[in-house]
Amino acid sequence: MKEIRIGLVGAGWMGKAHTNSFVNALLNFGPESGKPVFEVVSDVSTEAAEQACKQLGYSRWTTDWQEVVQDEKVDIVDIATPNAFHYEVAKAALENGKHVYCEKPLTLSAEQSTELAELAKQKGVVNYVGYNNVMNPANAYIKDLIESGKLGQIIGFSGTYAQDSLLDPSLPITWRHINKYSGSGALGDLGSHLLSVSQFLLGNIESVNTLAKTVIKKRPASPGSTELADVENDDLIAILAEYENGAIGTISSSRVAAGRKNYLTYEIQGTEGTVYYSLERMNEVNVYFTSDDSADRGFRTVFLGPDHKGYSAFYPAAGIAIGYNDMKVLEANELLSAVSKGTPYTCDFEFGAQIDQTVSAILESAAQKSWITVKNKGGVIA
Amino acid sequence: MKEIRIGLVGAGWMGKAHTNSFVNALLNFGPESGKPVFEVVSDVSTEAAEQACKQLGYSRWTTDWQEVVQDEKVDIVDIATPNAFHYEVAKAALENGKHVYCEKPLTLSAEQSTELAELAKQKGVVNYVGYNNVMNPANAYIKDLIESGKLGQIIGFSGTYAQDSLLDPSLPITWRHINKYSGSGALGDLGSHLLSVSQFLLGNIESVNTLAKTVIKKRPASPGSTELADVENDDLIAILAEYENGAIGTISSSRVAAGRKNYLTYEIQGTEGTVYYSLERMNEVNVYFTSDDSADRGFRTVFLGPDHKGYSAFYPAAGIAIGYNDMKVLEANELLSAVSKGTPYTCDFEFGAQIDQTVSAILESAAQKSWITVKNKGGVIA
Amino acid sequence: MKEIRIGLVGAGWMGKAHTNSFVNALLNFGPESGKPVFEVVSDVSTEAAEQACKQLGYSRWTTDWQEVVQDEKVDIVDIATPNAFHYEVAKAALENGKHVYCEKPLTLSAEQSTELAELAKQKGVVNYVGYNNVMNPANAYIKDLIESGKLGQIIGFSGTYAQDSLLDPSLPITWRHINKYSGSGALGDLGSHLLSVSQFLLGNIESVNTLAKTVIKKRPASPGSTELADVENDDLIAILAEYENGAIGTISSSRVAAGRKNYLTYEIQGTEGTVYYSLERMNEVNVYFTSDDSADRGFRTVFLGPDHKGYSAFYPAAGIAIGYNDMKVLEANELLSAVSKGTPYTCDFEFGAQIDQTVSAILESAAQKSWITVKNKGGVIA
Amino acid sequence: MKEIRIGLVGAGWMGKAHTNSFVNALLNFGPESGKPVFEVVSDVSTEAAEQACKQLGYSRWTTDWQEVVQDEKVDIVDIATPNAFHYEVAKAALENGKHVYCEKPLTLSAEQSTELAELAKQKGVVNYVGYNNVMNPANAYIKDLIESGKLGQIIGFSGTYAQDSLLDPSLPITWRHINKYSGSGALGDLGSHLLSVSQFLLGNIESVNTLAKTVIKKRPASPGSTELADVENDDLIAILAEYENGAIGTISSSRVAAGRKNYLTYEIQGTEGTVYYSLERMNEVNVYFTSDDSADRGFRTVFLGPDHKGYSAFYPAAGIAIGYNDMKVLEANELLSAVSKGTPYTCDFEFGAQIDQTVSAILESAAQKSWITVKNKGGVIA
Repeated sequence: MKEIRIGLVGAGWMGKAHTNSFVNALLNFGPESGKPVFEVVSDVSTEAAEQACKQLGYSRWTTDWQEVVQDEKVDIVDIATPNAFHYEVAKAALENGKHVYCEKPLTLSAEQSTELAELAKQKGVVNYVGYNNVMNPANAYIKDLIESGKLGQIIGFSGTYAQDSLLDPSLPITWRHINKYSGSGALGDLGSHLLSVSQFLLGNIESVNTLAKTVIKKRPASPGSTELADVENDDLIAILAEYENGAIGTISSSRVAAGRKNYLTYEIQGTEGTVYYSLERMNEVNVYFTSDDSADRGFRTVFLGPDHKGYSAFYPAAGIAIGYNDMKVLEANELLSAVSKGTPYTCDFEFGAQIDQTVSAILESAAQKSWITVKNKGGVIA
Repeated sequence: MKEIRIGLVGAGWMGKAHTNSFVNALLNFGPESGKPVFEVVSDVSTEAAEQACKQLGYSRWTTDWQEVVQDEKVDIVDIATPNAFHYEVAKAALENGKHVYCEKPLTLSAEQSTELAELAKQKGVVNYVGYNNVMNPANAYIKDLIESGKLGQIIGFSGTYAQDSLLDPSLPITWRHINKYSGSGALGDLGSHLLSVSQFLLGNIESVNTLAKTVIKKRPASPGSTELADVENDDLIAILAEYENGAIGTISSSRVAAGRKNYLTYEIQGTEGTVYYSLERMNEVNVYFTSDDSADRGFRTVFLGPDHKGYSAFYPAAGIAIGYNDMKVLEANELLSAVSKGTPYTCDFEFGAQIDQTVSAILESAAQKSWITVKNKGGVIA
Repeated sequence: MKEIRIGLVGAGWMGKAHTNSFVNALLNFGPESGKPVFEVVSDVSTEAAEQACKQLGYSRWTTDWQEVVQDEKVDIVDIATPNAFHYEVAKAALENGKHVYCEKPLTLSAEQSTELAELAKQKGVVNYVGYNNVMNPANAYIKDLIESGKLGQIIGFSGTYAQDSLLDPSLPITWRHINKYSGSGALGDLGSHLLSVSQFLLGNIESVNTLAKTVIKKRPASPGSTELADVENDDLIAILAEYENGAIGTISSSRVAAGRKNYLTYEIQGTEGTVYYSLERMNEVNVYFTSDDSADRGFRTVFLGPDHKGYSAFYPAAGIAIGYNDMKVLEANELLSAVSKGTPYTCDFEFGAQIDQTVSAILESAAQKSWITVKNKGGVIA
Repeated sequence: MKEIRIGLVGAGWMGKAHTNSFVNALLNFGPESGKPVFEVVSDVSTEAAEQACKQLGYSRWTTDWQEVVQDEKVDIVDIATPNAFHYEVAKAALENGKHVYCEKPLTLSAEQSTELAELAKQKGVVNYVGYNNVMNPANAYIKDLIESGKLGQIIGFSGTYAQDSLLDPSLPITWRHINKYSGSGALGDLGSHLLSVSQFLLGNIESVNTLAKTVIKKRPASPGSTELADVENDDLIAILAEYENGAIGTISSSRVAAGRKNYLTYEIQGTEGTVYYSLERMNEVNVYFTSDDSADRGFRTVFLGPDHKGYSAFYPAAGIAIGYNDMKVLEANELLSAVSKGTPYTCDFEFGAQIDQTVSAILESAAQKSWITVKNKGGVIA
């Protein structure tokens, strides 16, 4: 059983979630993919670093992330900082020859992400971006449906990721509303998850056109303040997309969609079938086959089960609900396996950089009110 | 009880449906709105005209529609011809001072529709276009939700009308595939219904951008033929829309959406609530209010009932399913009432012409790959 | 085209519904099954009789139902009186050799119903009970699924018919609450519809055991009154049933089920598949086949369409919603066809009498708190 | 941070699940409830014991469970053996003054369970039965709805727990089919979970009547064998229940329900509202309030979130899916808290014994075909 030593940068909610996922990867998959060992945790806050060290079981803590990326014992640098720091930490980690596990998005700009993807390739290390929805067993199943040809030629995609988390206008300004920290609004925070799934399943988007809207234009500058500050980015965004594979689609995202809690939903239409899915009903995939007998044709509600890749790590029979965290556990296991055994994985830095290129084109098309071609590196991934 | 004499032009499936709707309007609403009397039916086919006359209970038949529009006894000219003939018949009927009931779409061009709308206004007659979905009690309820302010400011719309009626590539070319008969593909046939609902609920669209796709580019020139003919228009279309009221939206339509049978569905997002609806579950409106207690907040599945305008003509209690035809019955009753009593109605020729202007702008934006401003007549309808 | 002359007894809501159904049967099916002619209508109320005559298009009216059953011109006596009068009118109609169309339930006692069934058989006339849910195209489809063997051996049934129509305790006493007028409460009013479907699909029930509950024990003696009167029968009832075919089941009914509007729902389990259905989503049948590929197995949501018997009278393509009244139209057409052409039909008086025997056994089992064997006439119907 | 030392008896799938739950309880709740320390694991299989020790992180292993219950360092004896051994191990653990955590069911007989409940009370130790569904945040919410009076007086319950895990007749005989190992069939295995929820929410059942059916009467005596052995117990069972609080209900369970994967579903009807739930859609509770405005009344689909007890241990916002295992984590945390801090808990041995009394009455009523009164200890729990 190979030990894999983790150095965590960022001790907030996401850092805790990453650590828990490593623990559960071991519990659910056993030690074949390597045993995570929690070496060092850093945070700018002394208190946060110290407490995380104790609670999460790290061997030591520091307030200087440079120590983490330089630590000889560390195998994987795990980046769970605010988004604006991803670039700097990831770059330093790569330069020190570390495997890197970076929470999504890779960086705040397509250029920086592309630079990191190239650097990672040079270094030959594992480079993993945490687009956890890709790991959902539902998407493994949907990918199988597409690749098997059961849905025919793929002609249409429509998807949305909507929440109402920022609908309340009395909520104050945070980093999410300020572009230098967030890059964009609903698009980068939520929409990028939808883009990751879309790219995984259909391949790259070729060109986009966009409408974006800031619904709540000013918010309290701080909690309870009467002073107002500007919201700089999209609360709500809608996109037309042409895919490289010829499909056309609509993509949207909102952080002000009343009643939508975690509504990541998408439908993929083919000439011989359609599949649709919603993360709010995480354990159900709906699929229709034109090959069924005419009188009995209908969308099938398929519960995830051992027939679908990833599921059986958790339960021995279909219909026992997996939860959101379980996607993160599958992600942690795939990462550990890549490090310990060199197994392939989907969400590498190039994958992440392509998403950031799409995000960049979307923002440009919204600003220019015209069609923009996405700068894609290579061929279709799907 | 005033008698209202109907002259029907076109004795096909839709002509029969119109006639049945008049009969059921009388059965369900009683004679207050006037009693329809079936005066004359015309069809280019002698056999069709004669048979319709006998089966549907008209007093006489003709193969010359000019006789219908000139008949002194006829009060309403009911146009159920193929779409390409709407303009000519409607114009002649108006010029003869008849009330006109024209199946949707009004004509195949925005210019002709606008011309008819102006002529109808001059003549002062009832001019009604059969966008029956507007009459759905679900939409009366949704309109109430919007106008009451219960949903707050409306910020987003997304809708689709998808069917798989033309997914089978062995189905031959029909008038639907040829622009001089149809104007457009899925857009005009299905999408226009969605536009009618959108326009009724949110008011006019200001500008559009579009992606259109012909999936099955050639079809048998005739049933069973090995010769192929070109499909000229959209199987699948996706649109970004800016509304005059500031909302943004996505609108799409498909006639090749595997598994979708009559999937006219839409969601309207406001700052204090969201409502969504699907015609496949015709009797259910789903609505969410941010004003509900936090722990108990969720989309409510509201069954149509006597509280919703139009429903109580059919049943005395909620949850007893109305069907598709019942929308047409409500339409027929509204028309009869307008003729007999001068009551207001929604779907006049101006309403129809505005839809055709939107259709025209959508087609132009698809052709030019750019944003196009819709030529709207007046202010927001909603 | 054979004319079939209707004599209606009872000019209330149900009499109107029957008449409309005859009209629509002709409109939707054409005159092949005979043309209904509205000969005479009777009601104890002069005003009701006179008004129904005029509005519904009968040739004449009377306040004496005996005139109807004796009228030589009348072919079908259509009984839409309060339930307590069904027996007397139906018996007189049969004795006069008339075809009889009796709204459900046949009578208020199993003995009287059995007597009528035997008399009808002697007379050789059409004898039809209005259990309209049996005519639902959904049930034609479900019956096909069962008889084709696609579901394997049938082992379980569970169903409920729940409404909240009488949940409000301020609603006054009506005939529904008094056994001499109603026979029973939720059981006879709603539950009998579920029994009709169960009997049509699975055949006869062999024995039953029951729990019944009167939730609102007293109600205002009249609208607005402060005087209270006793509710004599079940608001809520639950039944265990053994079927002659070996299946076991649970059957329940309620008129005080908060939120349930027209919740007639049932599930049938077989060794190779399961089907479930709810009248609140009238156009959808859900079916699961164990023969589907393991990874793709799930309940299919099948929309009613031309593949399912009865549907194509209304629409040419699947997914266009039929409504509740359309079941009554199918019923009227089946009746007219039986009269004019001698075609077979399901809901004859023997069918109705068997339901009443089941109701009788249920009431006895509730009273005795023990298992009661149902007095069934013959073999399994299914 | 108090250490709580676990001694596990039974190293199979459930033993692993218990251990993982302790780990995740610590990860999600922090060390306030005590830190689980994995002291010793026993299994009759040397290999299983040794491997579990290594993989799950126990300090030592043994093949003699007596060592575990007698070990001075052990605080909690965790019983994850086959059901037939629960009684013996639990009794010995109690006699040694240990806290006991016993997987459901408590024992195979109501008498033994009652004996254990009394012994546990004498000893004053924590005595916990693993009816994990009780810990579902959905049930915490439903319990709040009932206790707040928002649903009015509770009048009806209907529930089922159905799976198709044993529908395939080629699956061989296992301990589940033999009463000396299982006590009963679907009833004890699945139905008892439904009884636990019913008892938690509505309190005790007073009397029952039952229909039980063995669908597949013989199975291969061993995997692949042509020799057949008898199935001794219920594949399918249906129960009428009278509750002590006056409600009536139907309860059923099946292990041969085609298409049902983990269909634990129930509906609770009150005079002012109804709530229903299905574990297959684990994160959604559906609730209806008669107090809502008439036009806007409908079942609300409420996603679990921080407003509902237990949820916020996992996620900071509503709609992020919890999974099945998370109920077990909540259970483990409640147990640890009870041991370390004396906090109250629901599923004690008395709770478990009452379920076993209900099971016993159900089996007796099926055998005798008559109503049987449940031997309940005390008053209503709810």
